Amino acid sequence: MTLTGVDVAEHNSAESCWVIVHGKAYDVTEFLPEHPGGMKIILKYAGKDATDEFDPIHPPDTLDKFLDKSKHLGPVDMSTVKVEQKKESPEEKTRQEMIALKPPLSQCYNLLDFEAVAKRVMKKTAWAYYSSAADDEITMRENHAAFQRIWFRPKILVDVEKVDFSTTMLGTKVDMPFYVTATALGKLGHPEGEVLLTRASKKHNVVQMIPTLASCSFDEIMDAAEGDQVQWLQLYVNKDREITKRIVQHAEKRGCKALFITFTDEGSNVQNGEETDNSQGAARAISSFIDPALSWKDIPWFQGITKMPILLKGVQRVEDVLKAIEAGVQGVVLSNHGGRQLEFARSAIEVLAETMPVLKQMGLEDKIEIYVDGGVRRGTDILKALCMGAKGVGIGRPFLYAMSAYGPEGVDRAMALLRDELEMNMRLIGCTSVAELNPSLIDVRSLTSHGNGVPTDVLSKSVYDRLQSPAQRPKPKL
Amino acid sequence: MTLTGVDVAEHNSAESCWVIVHGKAYDVTEFLPEHPGGMKIILKYAGKDATDEFDPIHPPDTLDKFLDKSKHLGPVDMSTVKVEQKKESPEEKTRQEMIALKPPLSQCYNLLDFEAVAKRVMKKTAWAYYSSAADDEITMRENHAAFQRIWFRPKILVDVEKVDFSTTMLGTKVDMPFYVTATALGKLGHPEGEVLLTRASKKHNVVQMIPTLASCSFDEIMDAAEGDQVQWLQLYVNKDREITKRIVQHAEKRGCKALFITFTDEGSNVQNGEETDNSQGAARAISSFIDPALSWKDIPWFQGITKMPILLKGVQRVEDVLKAIEAGVQGVVLSNHGGRQLEFARSAIEVLAETMPVLKQMGLEDKIEIYVDGGVRRGTDILKALCMGAKGVGIGRPFLYAMSAYGPEGVDRAMALLRDELEMNMRLIGCTSVAELNPSLIDVRSLTSHGNGVPTDVLSKSVYDRLQSPAQRPKPKL
Amino acid sequence: MTLTGVDVAEHNSAESCWVIVHGKAYDVTEFLPEHPGGMKIILKYAGKDATDEFDPIHPPDTLDKFLDKSKHLGPVDMSTVKVEQKKESPEEKTRQEMIALKPPLSQCYNLLDFEAVAKRVMKKTAWAYYSSAADDEITMRENHAAFQRIWFRPKILVDVEKVDFSTTMLGTKVDMPFYVTATALGKLGHPEGEVLLTRASKKHNVVQMIPTLASCSFDEIMDAAEGDQVQWLQLYVNKDREITKRIVQHAEKRGCKALFITFTDEGSNVQNGEETDNSQGAARAISSFIDPALSWKDIPWFQGITKMPILLKGVQRVEDVLKAIEAGVQGVVLSNHGGRQLEFARSAIEVLAETMPVLKQMGLEDKIEIYVDGGVRRGTDILKALCMGAKGVGIGRPFLYAMSAYGPEGVDRAMALLRDELEMNMRLIGCTSVAELNPSLIDVRSLTSHGNGVPTDVLSKSVYDRLQSPAQRPKPKL
Amino acid sequence: MTLTGVDVAEHNSAESCWVIVHGKAYDVTEFLPEHPGGMKIILKYAGKDATDEFDPIHPPDTLDKFLDKSKHLGPVDMSTVKVEQKKESPEEKTRQEMIALKPPLSQCYNLLDFEAVAKRVMKKTAWAYYSSAADDEITMRENHAAFQRIWFRPKILVDVEKVDFSTTMLGTKVDMPFYVTATALGKLGHPEGEVLLTRASKKHNVVQMIPTLASCSFDEIMDAAEGDQVQWLQLYVNKDREITKRIVQHAEKRGCKALFITFTDEGSNVQNGEETDNSQGAARAISSFIDPALSWKDIPWFQGITKMPILLKGVQRVEDVLKAIEAGVQGVVLSNHGGRQLEFARSAIEVLAETMPVLKQMGLEDKIEIYVDGGVRRGTDILKALCMGAKGVGIGRPFLYAMSAYGPEGVDRAMALLRDELEMNMRLIGCTSVAELNPSLIDVRSLTSHGNGVPTDVLSKSVYDRLQSPAQRPKPKL
Repeated sequence: MTLTGVDVAEHNSAESCWVIVHGKAYDVTEFLPEHPGGMKIILKYAGKDATDEFDPIHPPDTLDKFLDKSKHLGPVDMSTVKVEQKKESPEEKTRQEMIALKPPLSQCYNLLDFEAVAKRVMKKTAWAYYSSAADDEITMRENHAAFQRIWFRPKILVDVEKVDFSTTMLGTKVDMPFYVTATALGKLGHPEGEVLLTRASKKHNVVQMIPTLASCSFDEIMDAAEGDQVQWLQLYVNKDREITKRIVQHAEKRGCKALFITFTDEGSNVQNGEETDNSQGAARAISSFIDPALSWKDIPWFQGITKMPILLKGVQRVEDVLKAIEAGVQGVVLSNHGGRQLEFARSAIEVLAETMPVLKQMGLEDKIEIYVDGGVRRGTDILKALCMGAKGVGIGRPFLYAMSAYGPEGVDRAMALLRDELEMNMRLIGCTSVAELNPSLIDVRSLTSHGNGVPTDVLSKSVYDRLQSPAQRPKPKL
Repeated sequence: MTLTGVDVAEHNSAESCWVIVHGKAYDVTEFLPEHPGGMKIILKYAGKDATDEFDPIHPPDTLDKFLDKSKHLGPVDMSTVKVEQKKESPEEKTRQEMIALKPPLSQCYNLLDFEAVAKRVMKKTAWAYYSSAADDEITMRENHAAFQRIWFRPKILVDVEKVDFSTTMLGTKVDMPFYVTATALGKLGHPEGEVLLTRASKKHNVVQMIPTLASCSFDEIMDAAEGDQVQWLQLYVNKDREITKRIVQHAEKRGCKALFITFTDEGSNVQNGEETDNSQGAARAISSFIDPALSWKDIPWFQGITKMPILLKGVQRVEDVLKAIEAGVQGVVLSNHGGRQLEFARSAIEVLAETMPVLKQMGLEDKIEIYVDGGVRRGTDILKALCMGAKGVGIGRPFLYAMSAYGPEGVDRAMALLRDELEMNMRLIGCTSVAELNPSLIDVRSLTSHGNGVPTDVLSKSVYDRLQSPAQRPKPKL
Repeated sequence: MTLTGVDVAEHNSAESCWVIVHGKAYDVTEFLPEHPGGMKIILKYAGKDATDEFDPIHPPDTLDKFLDKSKHLGPVDMSTVKVEQKKESPEEKTRQEMIALKPPLSQCYNLLDFEAVAKRVMKKTAWAYYSSAADDEITMRENHAAFQRIWFRPKILVDVEKVDFSTTMLGTKVDMPFYVTATALGKLGHPEGEVLLTRASKKHNVVQMIPTLASCSFDEIMDAAEGDQVQWLQLYVNKDREITKRIVQHAEKRGCKALFITFTDEGSNVQNGEETDNSQGAARAISSFIDPALSWKDIPWFQGITKMPILLKGVQRVEDVLKAIEAGVQGVVLSNHGGRQLEFARSAIEVLAETMPVLKQMGLEDKIEIYVDGGVRRGTDILKALCMGAKGVGIGRPFLYAMSAYGPEGVDRAMALLRDELEMNMRLIGCTSVAELNPSLIDVRSLTSHGNGVPTDVLSKSVYDRLQSPAQRPKPKL
Repeated sequence: MTLTGVDVAEHNSAESCWVIVHGKAYDVTEFLPEHPGGMKIILKYAGKDATDEFDPIHPPDTLDKFLDKSKHLGPVDMSTVKVEQKKESPEEKTRQEMIALKPPLSQCYNLLDFEAVAKRVMKKTAWAYYSSAADDEITMRENHAAFQRIWFRPKILVDVEKVDFSTTMLGTKVDMPFYVTATALGKLGHPEGEVLLTRASKKHNVVQMIPTLASCSFDEIMDAAEGDQVQWLQLYVNKDREITKRIVQHAEKRGCKALFITFTDEGSNVQNGEETDNSQGAARAISSFIDPALSWKDIPWFQGITKMPILLKGVQRVEDVLKAIEAGVQGVVLSNHGGRQLEFARSAIEVLAETMPVLKQMGLEDKIEIYVDGGVRRGTDILKALCMGAKGVGIGRPFLYAMSAYGPEGVDRAMALLRDELEMNMRLIGCTSVAELNPSLIDVRSLTSHGNGVPTDVLSKSVYDRLQSPAQRPKPKL
C-alpha cells in the first residue's frame, strides 16, 4: 500500500512523528530521544520529506541498520507530497554567485588554494564541519605550523635526473608516500562523497583509508575500487563488540588490507542542547556509539578476529609506540585527529621527532611502521616526515576541500600538485629515492619550541580590551 | 524625627555635607578627607540621594562599621526628596540595545564567550574595574598565555568509560578541581553580588572563597550557603590587628573552613588626584586599610587566634613555598593577583613548574597543598595544573563575566561547561581519576620561554611611529 | 625577397605559425611544442609582430641559437605590417600615474626604499617575476629575517678615523665586500638590462657576476665592461656538455675571471598548463635546458676545460663545503637561490654559522673562499657575514629594484648607500679594516632559533576561518 | 651703525649671503659650505630674519663660537625688516587643534602616555628628530622590549611599610635611582629647553647630565641649578683637543661633578644631499665636529686635565668594561645611544646581564659603577636594572616628550609617576631598600633570546607583496 503526502503530514509532532526519506515513510516517534543529533532536527521535518537533510550526513544503509523494520512504513506517492518552496536566503544567493565566478581550477597552485575556494563555495554548515576543530583550534593550526619549524639541509651535486618517490606501505607498492586518510561525511562537500576519493586514489595509485563515519556506505566505497586497488579500514570501535566483529570481518572479506583502530571521545554534553548548531549536531550524531572503554586489553581480541594487519591510529607519545610494538601490532599512526579532539595535543610530527630516536636506540625502528597525519599541505611537509623516519603520511581535509571546490577534477589536480612538488623537492634536497631520505637532511632543533610558535589565541585576543593612550578632549559644541 | 529632602539638600558642600543612603541621612563632613575613594565623588552627591552610586562598591554594613553613630542622622521622608531625572547618555542607550539583543546563553560555548558578552553589556566603569590590571596588562594576559606553552602527552587505549575528576581540597570533597576564588565588588556585575556565586558553588559542589572586598557583607554570603556547603575566607590584613582578629574569629564561628591570607599594596599616589576615573577610585577605595607591614613574623599570631587551616595567597617563588612549609601553614596559593599588582610577576603556573620539582626532591610535596590561580579559562588549563602537582585552581574573573552577562544561569552554565570540558579532556588524555594525573602527561619545556611569549606591549606599539617608504609626490593642482 | 605584413598574417595558427621579431619573420610552427614558455604565448602573436613581448625575456641571440636557420624567413617590410592599436588598460594607466609622481631618488635612504618604489612603477608581470619565490615564500623572507637574529658586540674607543672596507675576492681587489650576483631577465626591469649593472659595478669597483639567463647576451655584457673591470660567469650546466664547454671557454677567452657553477630544478609540470600566468612562464622558459644529472663526478671535467677558478653556487650544508674543498674548487657560495627553489632551505647566513666553526676546527678555513647571498639589504648584514667568516656577499634583487625604479642613477645610489652604511657601521663596531672583523663582534646564539622566527605563513593564515565570539541577535525588522 | 632690512635683503644669494639672528646681521657667505646642516637651509633665509629657524637647534653662543667676529655685522633696525606673513599650513592648523584639545595632564598615567600626546602636539620635524633612530629602528624598540623578557621573582611577607629607593651615584645622594640623561636639542620640544629639566631634577633630587648638544648653552644650564644640585657633563670629544680641554675645565670650574665621555659617528654622507629633510639636517648639524680617532690611549690625557670622575658612555661589551676598569675610570654607561647609532647593537640591559656575572667572578663588581640607559619607561624597568647590578639608569626621551607635551608640569608629573611606580613596585617585590635588590629577584633566562623578540621589521614587511589565494573571476559585463 502506497502512502500519500497527506497520510504522512498528519504525523507531524513528537507524539507521532513520521518522516519521508528517499520516497519511503518511517515512524521515528520512539527513536526521537535516541537520535544522536538530537530530536529537534527530526521534528523540523516531522510529517515531511527529510531526504535533503538526511543524505549528506547518513550513509544510505543507516535506516536499515538502526531503525527497526516495523517502523519502515513503505513507499509514499511522492506526487502527493507537497513540495516546500524553499526561499533562497541571501547567504545562499551570495554563495551561488561565488560558485558562478569561482576561479578556474588551473589557478589552484597548491593545496591551500583549494581551501580558499572551498571556503567561498561550500554551504556554511558544511564548511564549518570540515574546517572546525577543538577549543581554540590551536592544535589544528599547530599541526601545519609545526612543519614550518623544520628546515632542510639539502645536498647538492647529486645526479637527480631520475627521482622515484614511490614507496611501500604495509607491503603495498604506492606511487607517492601519502594516503587518503579517513574523514567523515564526504557528502557534505560533494554529492558523490567518498567514492570520488576512491577513484582519485586509484588514478594516482595511493591507498584510501575508508572512514567509519563515511557518507557513503562501506560497500559503496569498496565497490568503487578497481582492480587490485588497495583500501584500508578506519574503525571506531562500537560498544557492542559483535557489531565491531561483523564490520571487521566483512571488511576483510571484501578485501580491505589493513585495520586502523581509532580512539575518540563523545564530545561534551552541555553543547548538546536545543540550540546546538547543525555542524556540531553532525559531529555528535556520528560518534555517540564509540566505546570509551576500549583498552590495550582489547588488542588480542582484534588479533583473534582478523588476519588483516592491525594499526593504532591516534598515538601521541613514544611510550605508547613501545606498547604498540609489545602488543604486536603492525603499525601506528601518530595523530591528534586533525586537532578535533584534545586541544594542546602535540602535532604528529613533533611526536615523531620524540619517537624515532628512541626506537633507533632500542633497535626497534624496523619492528613497526610509523605513519603521521595532520597539517600536511606541501610536498616539503611529506619529505620532512619521511626524513624523520615516517613510512608515510595521511592527508585528509585538503582532499575534502579540493572535492568540495572542484569535484573529481579538484582531487585529481590536488594529487598531481603533490606529485609535482614531491618530484621537484626530492631533486632540490638531492635525493633520488625514498630510501635516501634521512634525518641529516633536516634541522629539527626548533620543533619542540612552543615559546611563541603557538598559533594566535583568537578568542582570548579578541575579548581583550586594549589599553588606550589618553584621549583627546571632546570638541566643544558651538 | 524624620528628615525631609529639603533638610538634607541644605548640606550640599564640603563645609557641611550630608548624603542619603537607603533612606537614611548621614553627615559625612568630617569623613570627607578620609574617604578612600576621594572626596570628590561624595561631594557630587552632597545633599542628595547617593544610594545608586554607593551600593555596588560598599558592603551594606560599611556605614555602620566606618561612620561614627553620631553622624547617622536618621530616616528621610523619601517622598520629599527630589528625584533626579537622569538623562540617558548615548553610551547607555547603546548598552541597552546591546542587552536587548545579546546572544542566547546557549551560544556561549566556553568561558571566553561570557567575557565577550559581558564586555558588550556591562557598564563601562564596571567592565573597566573587572577587566583591567597593572601597567601594560602584560602579566594579566601572560597568565592565560602561559598555559598555552604547555602541551599534552596523552595516553591512549585506557578504559575511560568512567572518569572521576572529583578531588579533595583541605579535606573537603569537591566535585571539580577548582574553587571560586575571591574577587572584589561583585555587585558591579550583578545586583545580587557574591551570593549568586555562593548558590552556584553549592549546585556544582565546589568551594567558594569569600573576598574581603565583597559587595555583599560577609554574613550575607555565609547566610546564602546551604547545608554543609564549604566556604573559605580570603583576608586582607588590617593595620588594626584587633579588627583582623574580630573578622577571623567571626568567620571561624560562622563556619568558614580555611583562612587565605593575602598581601597587596595600596596603589600609587599620583593617580589619586581629582580627576582619577571611577574604576580606579573603586580599586583604591577598597584597599587603603591593608597593612603593608605584614610579615612572616605575624604568622604565629594568626595560628594563635584560629583553628582554621591557614594558607598564604600570592606566593610567587619556590623559596617562599619552603618558608611557608617551615612556618607550618597548610597551603599556599601561587598567584600574581590576576595581574593586578606587580607587572612582570610570573604566572602562577610557571611558579608551579619551578616549585614542584624542588618539593619532590626535598620530599616535601605532601607537607602542603599547592593551589594556583590566574588565567584559567579552559578544562585543559585545569588539567595541566593538576598534572604539574597543583591540588586545585582558583577561578575568578570568568565567573564575574558570566554573572554580569547572564546572571545565575550564566554562572551555572560556565561551571557546567568546565565540567564537560574536564570530563572530555580527562578521557582524551587517558586518565580516569585526579590521582592518575602526573607530569609525564605534559611537556612544559617551553613554559619558561619568554622570548616572544610576551603578550603585545600595546601602548608602546601604538605610540611607535612606523617607518615609511618614500611617499609619492603630491599630485599637482590644476 | 622582403616579406609583407600580409604574407606573414596568413600564417596565424598552430598549423602554420609565423612571427615577426625585430623586422624579420620566423616560422616557428615546428618549434611550438618545444617552446619552454608554452605554445600559447606564441600563438597569441601568430602572424604578427612579437618584438615587444619577445625582447625582455630573450637575449638577442636566442633565435640564432635555438631556431634552425631554415626557419629564418628574412626581412619584412614593416610599413606593410598593421600596427596594433594597444588600448591602455586601467592598470597601465594607474602605473603611468605612479611613474609620473614617483618620489625623487634622493628620498630613497636604503635598499628597501627602492623595492617600495619598484613595486609601484614596474609592470605587474615584471614585478611578479622579480619578487616572487617558492611555495609560501617563507625562505625568501627568512633570508633577510635571519640577519635580524644576529646582534652586534661592538668595541669602543678604537681610532676609527680611517676605515677601509675594501677587500680581495678571488685575488681581485674590490672597494666593497659585495658583488652583483647573477639574476635573470634584467630587461624586465629596465630596457638596457644587465649592462646597466656592469657600468655601475665599474663605477663602484665591485665585481659583477654575469647570469646565464640574462636578457642581454653574454658578449653584450662583457663588451660593456671597461678597462680591467672584473666579471665572473654564473653557469647553469646544459644537458649538452658541448654547449657548456663552448660557453665556458668563450667566457674565459673573453676575460671572465671565475666560473660559478649553479644547480637548479626545472620547476613543476602541473603549472605548465594553458593558463599559467606570464611570470611563471618566464621562469620556466629560461630553465628547461638545465641538467639535473650534474654531480660531483662532473667537477674534474670542468677543471679540465678551463683555468678559471671554479666555485660552486648554492651549497647548503657544511658536509658539501668539505666535499668542495676535497674536490679542489676555489670557493663556494652558500645560497638558497633567493628562496626561489627549495622552500625551507636554510638561509645562507645560517649555513655560514654552521660551516665556519667546522672549517676552523679542521684547519680548513683558508682552503676555500666562502661567499653568501640572499636577503642582504643593509650594511650591517654585510658586516655580520664578514664577521662570521664570509669573504663577501652577493646582492641581487635590490639592484634590480633600484634599476627598475630609477635606472642607472638608482643603482648608483643603491651602491653609494651601501658604501655609506658600511663606512658608518665599521666605525660603530670599532673596526678599521675587513681583517679586523671577527666572530667576537657578534652574537649569533639566536640564529638557529626557528620557533617563531618563521615569517608569517600568509596563505595558511588567510584561509583560516577565525573563531568568533557569540554574535548579537539580528535586529528585528519593524 | 645700525643696518636696515633693505641693507640685509640685498645679500640674498650664495654669492653674498647675510642673515639676521636676534636682531643682528651676520655675513655667512664664506661659512656656507662649512655649515654642518648644509647650505640649502641657510640660503632659504638669505637676506632675511632666520631667528625662528636658528633658535631651537643652536645654543645661543653658537655664532660667537663658530663665526669669525669680522662677520658679525652688528644690529639691524628690526622695524625696517619686512615681516614674512607665514601662511598657516593645513598640518599646522591640525596641530593647533590637537593642542587646543589635548588631554588634561592628570590623564597621563605613565611615561608612554606623554609620548602619545607629544606625537600629536609637536611639530612634525621636532617629533621626527626626537623619535627617530638608526636604520629600521629595531634597536630603539629592542631597548624597551628587552626589559619585557625579564620577569620578577618577588618575595612576600616582608614588612614593606617603609620603602626607601634613594641611592648614591658617584657619591651623590639621590632620591630616585635614575638620572636625566643627555639628549640633544631640547628647544625643539619646548622654548625653555634643557633648563626646564634642570629645575625638575632639582625638585625631585635627581642628577641631570648636561648634553654637549644642548639647545641652551652650558652656562645657562649650570646657572639654572640651585643650591647643591648635582650636574654631570656629557662630552663628545672635539677633534681639536684644546677646545675639549677648555670645555672640560670650564665645566669642572663651574661645579660639574662628573665627566661622561661619549663616542659617536658622523652619520653617512649620501644623506647629506640637497633634499635631506630637516630633522636629519639637525642630526648632522650637531655632530660633525666629533673626533672619530678617540681611543683608549686618550684616557690618561683626560685624567690629566680634570679631577672630576671620568665615565665612559656607550660601552657595549663586557671586554670593554674590563678595559675601563683597567684604565682606571670611575664608571661606565652601558648604552647603544637610544638606538640612534649602530642598528643591532644589543640593549644596555642585555649587556648588563653579560657584564655583572663576569665582574662578580673576577671580584671586580665594586671597582666601578655601572649605569645603563635606553628603553626605560617603567618603574619595573628601573628595578630590573638595579636587581641585575646597575647603580642607576639614565632616562632621556620620556622627559623630552613630557616637556614637549606639557612643559615643566609634564616633567614634574613624569618624575612623580616614576616615584610612585618605584614605591609600589619595591613593596610588591618585597624590598625596602636599594641594597636589598639582587639577581634572585628576577628571571633573565629569556633576555638573550632574539628568535622572535626582534621588533617588527616594518619596511621589509611593508614592501613584501603578500601571496594571494586564487582570485574570483571578474563579473561579466551585461
